[in-house]
Amino acid sequence: MAYTEFPSRLLENAVNEFASLPGVGRKTAFRLVMNLLRRDAGEVKRFGESILKLHEEIHYCRSCHNISDTELCSVCADEKRDRSLICVVENIQDVMAIENTRQFRGLYHVLGGIISPVDGIGPSDLKIDSLEEKIKAGGIGEVIFALSTTMEGDTTNFYLYKRLSKYDIILTTLARGVAIGDELEYTDEITLGRAINNRNPYHQ
Amino acid sequence: MAYTEFPSRLLENAVNEFASLPGVGRKTAFRLVMNLLRRDAGEVKRFGESILKLHEEIHYCRSCHNISDTELCSVCADEKRDRSLICVVENIQDVMAIENTRQFRGLYHVLGGIISPVDGIGPSDLKIDSLEEKIKAGGIGEVIFALSTTMEGDTTNFYLYKRLSKYDIILTTLARGVAIGDELEYTDEITLGRAINNRNPYHQ
Repeated sequence: MAYTEFPSRLLENAVNEFASLPGVGRKTAFRLVMNLLRRDAGEVKRFGESILKLHEEIHYCRSCHNISDTELCSVCADEKRDRSLICVVENIQDVMAIENTRQFRGLYHVLGGIISPVDGIGPSDLKIDSLEEKIKAGGIGEVIFALSTTMEGDTTNFYLYKRLSKYDIILTTLARGVAIGDELEYTDEITLGRAINNRNPYHQ
Repeated sequence: MAYTEFPSRLLENAVNEFASLPGVGRKTAFRLVMNLLRRDAGEVKRFGESILKLHEEIHYCRSCHNISDTELCSVCADEKRDRSLICVVENIQDVMAIENTRQFRGLYHVLGGIISPVDGIGPSDLKIDSLEEKIKAGGIGEVIFALSTTMEGDTTNFYLYKRLSKYDIILTTLARGVAIGDELEYTDEITLGRAINNRNPYHQ
């Protein structure tokens, strides 16, 4: 059934917002909003506020660009992490995936995407300048390229290698073990953990 | 992968809220929140506020208990509707389903549920008193029981009949045509429209 006429504009607005989410149709959106309407006011308030706070209060770490509640994220602020080792990833999901393996004790650098000419994303759209600044500042011994083994990931690896190989640091990539064509985010923890431990020097 | 450790408490809160919705798992919830994070602030604000307004600003019609932006809903306020004819439904989805058929020109009465001993819902949990008051006040010629053809719907029909048959009004039910065991909300418009037009006197 196509819920064409809503008895309330507020209800319709909420349904439209939910229906704008990926994979959520209008029927599902309506069902979700009806579920919220049945809850008590405090619960719905908490739900709405958790969304408002996403943009109002969330920070991105000034060093690694990971999402954070504070100016410096908990990984970068952790004194026990190896500051000479930087793992370059596409997004925060990848940080979470690698953190979950409990195999990596260095720091991260979140690019905020990968080079993808099809989507119009070039090197200047990514946080590569701040990565280079960090390397120039010294104290970095190794940079791991932990990008998805897709064409876009390979392109980004290649670009990063061209740009960073002039510095006196070791450049490595994740070990073969992550299947070709796989998204890093959905790789199982054992494969991903092994790939971090068996990382290889980057070569074209 | 089980996203066990979140880099941000705010992010985790938002994921938990989405994961509390029916049919939304933690992975889907995370994907939805990441989608919101990629949008600009104004859009996310509008999303959050549409949820907050659900409880803060929404009204229930003082006459028929349908959801409404005003004290009296647009159906009850419409001078052209037949005020002697009341259609009793379980919830607002059912009002919307019947309105969509464009076959019904009377008013509604939303019970806010149906009698279901299994779920602990008895007659006193439903808006039956206000329905009886409306009938006592006079001017009502016919009351249609438009409830789902489930065991709970039948029980509620029976209870309403017992309670309202002493008044000098016609009690009708939807015509056979709605398949047994079907939820009213998901019935197609043609069947539902025909069932309203071919309604029959209520008999046990």
